[in-house]
Amino acid sequence: MISGVFCASTTPLNADLSPDLGAFTAHAKALIADGCDGIALLGTTGEANSFSLAERRSILEAGVGAVGAGRLMPGTGVNALPETVELTRHALSLGVTRVVMLPPSYYKGVSDEGLFRAYAHVIETIGDSRLQLVLYHIPQVSSVPISHELIERLVTAFPQTVVGIKDSAGKIENMSAMIARFPGFAVLAGADPLLLPLLGMGGAGCITATSNLVADSLATVFRHHADPSRKAEVEAAQARINAFRDLSNSYTQIPAIKAMVAYRHGAALWTRTRPPLVGLTPAELDDLKHRLTAIGASVKDFAA
Amino acid sequence: MISGVFCASTTPLNADLSPDLGAFTAHAKALIADGCDGIALLGTTGEANSFSLAERRSILEAGVGAVGAGRLMPGTGVNALPETVELTRHALSLGVTRVVMLPPSYYKGVSDEGLFRAYAHVIETIGDSRLQLVLYHIPQVSSVPISHELIERLVTAFPQTVVGIKDSAGKIENMSAMIARFPGFAVLAGADPLLLPLLGMGGAGCITATSNLVADSLATVFRHHADPSRKAEVEAAQARINAFRDLSNSYTQIPAIKAMVAYRHGAALWTRTRPPLVGLTPAELDDLKHRLTAIGASVKDFAA
Repeated sequence: MISGVFCASTTPLNADLSPDLGAFTAHAKALIADGCDGIALLGTTGEANSFSLAERRSILEAGVGAVGAGRLMPGTGVNALPETVELTRHALSLGVTRVVMLPPSYYKGVSDEGLFRAYAHVIETIGDSRLQLVLYHIPQVSSVPISHELIERLVTAFPQTVVGIKDSAGKIENMSAMIARFPGFAVLAGADPLLLPLLGMGGAGCITATSNLVADSLATVFRHHADPSRKAEVEAAQARINAFRDLSNSYTQIPAIKAMVAYRHGAALWTRTRPPLVGLTPAELDDLKHRLTAIGASVKDFAA
Repeated sequence: MISGVFCASTTPLNADLSPDLGAFTAHAKALIADGCDGIALLGTTGEANSFSLAERRSILEAGVGAVGAGRLMPGTGVNALPETVELTRHALSLGVTRVVMLPPSYYKGVSDEGLFRAYAHVIETIGDSRLQLVLYHIPQVSSVPISHELIERLVTAFPQTVVGIKDSAGKIENMSAMIARFPGFAVLAGADPLLLPLLGMGGAGCITATSNLVADSLATVFRHHADPSRKAEVEAAQARINAFRDLSNSYTQIPAIKAMVAYRHGAALWTRTRPPLVGLTPAELDDLKHRLTAIGASVKDFAA
């Protein structure tokens, strides 16, 4: 069963908005050193949908070189099924067997039947028994929710392949219902504040944006949540996580996470985003710096 | 100024769900024979976002071979800006200078600043003065509306390139406000029932799904709407258009349009859709056949 703390890593950009692979690999190594079990690169926080297939392949290859295939769980789901197949096969060709797969999300209000056919087409076309597929439920962005009925059909048809879900909708009730209904199915929280309560009910871990900054605290919660003697330490770690999360969400989240990573590494390049996302303004960056300091972050300055 | 009746053409599929280029080119020729001024292939109705870049290129090339580059106005906007650049450059390389460009639509609630930067990046990277770009406002599917403030910025920055909009939201007030605010900017209706009222207020024409079936009637409305002596003929044509549109919208629209095209050409292959869209059921197909006959359509049967 997939479990642990996975970082929804951000993707640094060069001045021409191409991926900065050197900065990416350095960050990936830092995340593992922080205590991440793995890196769920190329998700929503990683701006994956803003990158071409060629860029996505280059980012994944850089990640494999930096931390090894076994640590990586890339996003490979795009709107066009042949391209989802292509990206997933590319991951498998590198020895990366675990992927997080968005459903096609251009059309809205599609049926479970249509989504089942989409996932089934991809799984059957790939036909690789190594594949471990994590579904991706993030309806506030994708507008295409993953229903429990769809999960039921998929785990019944592909029990060795469809092994979990990243639930980024932020509703603990949805996660507890999936844990109860699908034994052995990994439910991973996409929202940091839910890690501790989720683990208490049998959840598998998390894939979160804040772990770009406080993966050490997330690892503390994950490893020691069941140890009564460390209750205060675990609760303090969760409170620290929540403070970083609340801070990022008081701006536009993804640009704010990137700016916080810029202050972590002391490198302005991290503040860049690909359109349609827009980086924080100079005033916001300055405000963020003070607020990071106020919550106890170690801030490295950078020239804008 | 771009004007006329453009068909948002559907894309036929082989049994393996690859595009059937032979059926596509035959249909494209039929649409021009019907009276379409051009074909806006690879839009929402054409399931463009469900096709890989390679498939999109092959469909456009087949279209150029069938009816000529001057008749085509393909969709080229995808989520990743380098791929929007690639598809648009490919169109230009074939002599296709007019494109309909979706904004990146994975992220929701993005700012006009972010969308401006996205379009500006694409236009400046391509750097081809031949490009005629039609914006695409279809918020009920893309979830990313094109605001008037964004249009103002784009037509000011790129007056020779950003020349029009396809408005598929179905609100005549939005179209009339754009016509008033942006002189010389082509406002094209994406909803068939609005063609006649739009033309009365200075609109440029339409890009609609129903023109896969009744482009002759749309051409009648477009060509004769201002001629009082043909008022009855024009109103009858608009009524016929509306009857086909209402019929398609009483099912899931895109599969229904494809099924109606199947009955037009007498070919079951047209009923296929790519997941996540699902074709009509046998019962729905049978029901549709009777309702097509009831509104006076010429129905060619096919073996399922």
